[in-house]
Amino acid sequence: MAMRAYVLIEAAVGKAKGVAEGVQRLSSADARVVSVDAVTGPYDVIALLEADDLDKLGRVVTEGIQQVDGVQRTTTCLVVRLS
Amino acid sequence: MAMRAYVLIEAAVGKAKGVAEGVQRLSSADARVVSVDAVTGPYDVIALLEADDLDKLGRVVTEGIQQVDGVQRTTTCLVVRLS
Amino acid sequence: MAMRAYVLIEAAVGKAKGVAEGVQRLSSADARVVSVDAVTGPYDVIALLEADDLDKLGRVVTEGIQQVDGVQRTTTCLVVRLS
Amino acid sequence: MAMRAYVLIEAAVGKAKGVAEGVQRLSSADARVVSVDAVTGPYDVIALLEADDLDKLGRVVTEGIQQVDGVQRTTTCLVVRLS
Amino acid sequence: MAMRAYVLIEAAVGKAKGVAEGVQRLSSADARVVSVDAVTGPYDVIALLEADDLDKLGRVVTEGIQQVDGVQRTTTCLVVRLS
Amino acid sequence: MAMRAYVLIEAAVGKAKGVAEGVQRLSSADARVVSVDAVTGPYDVIALLEADDLDKLGRVVTEGIQQVDGVQRTTTCLVVRLS
Amino acid sequence: MAMRAYVLIEAAVGKAKGVAEGVQRLSSADARVVSVDAVTGPYDVIALLEADDLDKLGRVVTEGIQQVDGVQRTTTCLVVRLS
Amino acid sequence: MAMRAYVLIEAAVGKAKGVAEGVQRLSSADARVVSVDAVTGPYDVIALLEADDLDKLGRVVTEGIQQVDGVQRTTTCLVVRLS
Amino acid sequence: MAMRAYVLIEAAVGKAKGVAEGVQRLSSADARVVSVDAVTGPYDVIALLEADDLDKLGRVVTEGIQQVDGVQRTTTCLVVRLS
Amino acid sequence: MAMRAYVLIEAAVGKAKGVAEGVQRLSSADARVVSVDAVTGPYDVIALLEADDLDKLGRVVTEGIQQVDGVQRTTTCLVVRLS
Repeated sequence: MAMRAYVLIEAAVGKAKGVAEGVQRLSSADARVVSVDAVTGPYDVIALLEADDLDKLGRVVTEGIQQVDGVQRTTTCLVVRLS
Repeated sequence: MAMRAYVLIEAAVGKAKGVAEGVQRLSSADARVVSVDAVTGPYDVIALLEADDLDKLGRVVTEGIQQVDGVQRTTTCLVVRLS
Repeated sequence: MAMRAYVLIEAAVGKAKGVAEGVQRLSSADARVVSVDAVTGPYDVIALLEADDLDKLGRVVTEGIQQVDGVQRTTTCLVVRLS
Repeated sequence: MAMRAYVLIEAAVGKAKGVAEGVQRLSSADARVVSVDAVTGPYDVIALLEADDLDKLGRVVTEGIQQVDGVQRTTTCLVVRLS
Repeated sequence: MAMRAYVLIEAAVGKAKGVAEGVQRLSSADARVVSVDAVTGPYDVIALLEADDLDKLGRVVTEGIQQVDGVQRTTTCLVVRLS
Repeated sequence: MAMRAYVLIEAAVGKAKGVAEGVQRLSSADARVVSVDAVTGPYDVIALLEADDLDKLGRVVTEGIQQVDGVQRTTTCLVVRLS
Repeated sequence: MAMRAYVLIEAAVGKAKGVAEGVQRLSSADARVVSVDAVTGPYDVIALLEADDLDKLGRVVTEGIQQVDGVQRTTTCLVVRLS
Repeated sequence: MAMRAYVLIEAAVGKAKGVAEGVQRLSSADARVVSVDAVTGPYDVIALLEADDLDKLGRVVTEGIQQVDGVQRTTTCLVVRLS
Repeated sequence: MAMRAYVLIEAAVGKAKGVAEGVQRLSSADARVVSVDAVTGPYDVIALLEADDLDKLGRVVTEGIQQVDGVQRTTTCLVVRLS
Repeated sequence: MAMRAYVLIEAAVGKAKGVAEGVQRLSSADARVVSVDAVTGPYDVIALLEADDLDKLGRVVTEGIQQVDGVQRTTTCLVVRLS
């Protein structure tokens, strides 16, 4: 079943827009970028990803998002159905 | 134009499920709850809200979400279109 | 495919042993407790869990581990195959 | 309706004055700089901005203030009418 | 010469509105409340005060603002003219 | 008696995979690498080591793991039997 | 071979002396209290313990030191011979 | 030779004045209170103490200042002559 | 009336002595350096300044102390008379 | 009377052994190095120093230990006799 994750991204000062665009443009067989939003607050960009399994999600974060120029730190929040 | 915000919510230990359900059930003339997800990581629940303006969004956070039992801290990340 | 997670647990002062025992005793249809170790350092107990999917893992953390007496905070680290 | 934000700015050591002057000089079709004050405390400069909408505000922060030499970190606090 | 300070206020969860109203209502011979805004971000309310000297400002913070119900922490940023 | 430790490893942005592989490849007369997992959360890799005594464990951390390219910080959690 | 650990202890405000005395008085078959010093700085008391193995050391920390009235947090630093 | 220390004191919200007065009133054979100032910033009160030796200074902090009502945390900075 | 401030200074590793000397040597029409002490603890040097007004104090911090080689961070604590 | 201090030392990644050796080799007319231990936990090395007075201790920390290659941060905890 598809798995989703919010990736909270901190960008270098002045790089928020470039990071949002870079993440939006990521193309990967591993995961689908559902949405990318530049935001105010402690994070600069929030991306929502969807993949078939956790391993593919993990690869997109470490080999996709973390390679985008200006990304300084990512925090991955996996969606869990508790009920 | 509609305004959106991610609200990153920290719940008391053992209360994540109740918080997610409480936020999901919020009904307000001020804002629409687009999605509510329980997540792993430093936050326990991530909600996406939509409202007509910032004031309504702010009211839903402080008078809606922050009143849900088990909510300990909220971080509001407003969506900004940079392009 | 089975999914695994390290759960890093902080216990109340003087409660590490009781927490380790309580987590060890958890029985759940949702997940299997692979190992539970009391440890030195910033965490008091590290548990390794295995489940069929992320949702079951999430439920064991929030409804199992976080309900054990003396648990103050949990940090869930999901195992990802990057290669 | 106009939207306002306090931008709390941390400057590099010894750069507070230059940052305050650089922010004061920002000219933008997107937002109006209402006030800029050098301050003591954990922040070095506090700016109050006003714009027609959140997107314009966001652009002035990331493409205006964050490009000023000596700016190390910004924290945006959007004004909300709760009553 | 008049002295001004931004007071960055953290409120208890769910108390932002009450704190903003309480600070707005403060009446003091010592200082004038120039503005009070509820805000998003790490602080809940930002007040701008003006007084004849630092001692009066200090008194309004510790004996006025800090006595308002729901105030948890205040950070005072005094305005400095660097040029 | 054999001694075990979880080593929680933070990697430079974009280096998680290389760090996991580098730690996996460590060969040492001092300690055995029981498992190495890339993980989500505040750490990037969790390794479980086993050695004959604490000194050998310590050497593997400081002279083995900390020398792997991309390792930024390690937190060693020694397993303790409390019962 | 004997194993030693520095235990860095934070005491409740005003309790440093009582904590130092309580730790000094600990008697245990598991470990020997080599020294206990009240100190200035981020910790209030530093104890040096010696035991036959890590498990005994761990037990003295969680079941001895952490049970002393006024102890709020302990950080255990195990001595490692690197050469 | 006399020894001096700055004691940086954090007070409970709304208690800064009472703490400053309480520290000012401390009378002790062990140390002399050179000055006590209420301050803005991360600390609420800064006291400068002088004593014949470090032990007496330590006693005044833990048994004098830390017993004053409203004191939440103290940070002791001992004066050192480096030249 | 004269205004005083404690400036808590963090120095680069190994630079405490040079920073203390550099701050001691500052000569400024704006403010008087009342005392400069190298200290133990989270800060390396504590300076007490006196000036005619807050603006002059602010200038000495940002254009004097923060320009001294080895200064990494300053925290200004303004003295307030609360009674 | 002799004065003692624990110096808690953080080393650069991979430098713990070199730092411990460098501190051990320090020779100084000002202070005696009683013990130096490499440790696990948030610090890498703990040194116990003894000197005739605080000034000599302070000099050994800032001009001795902090000059050792690989030392990133030191925390000095002075021993106080409270009874």
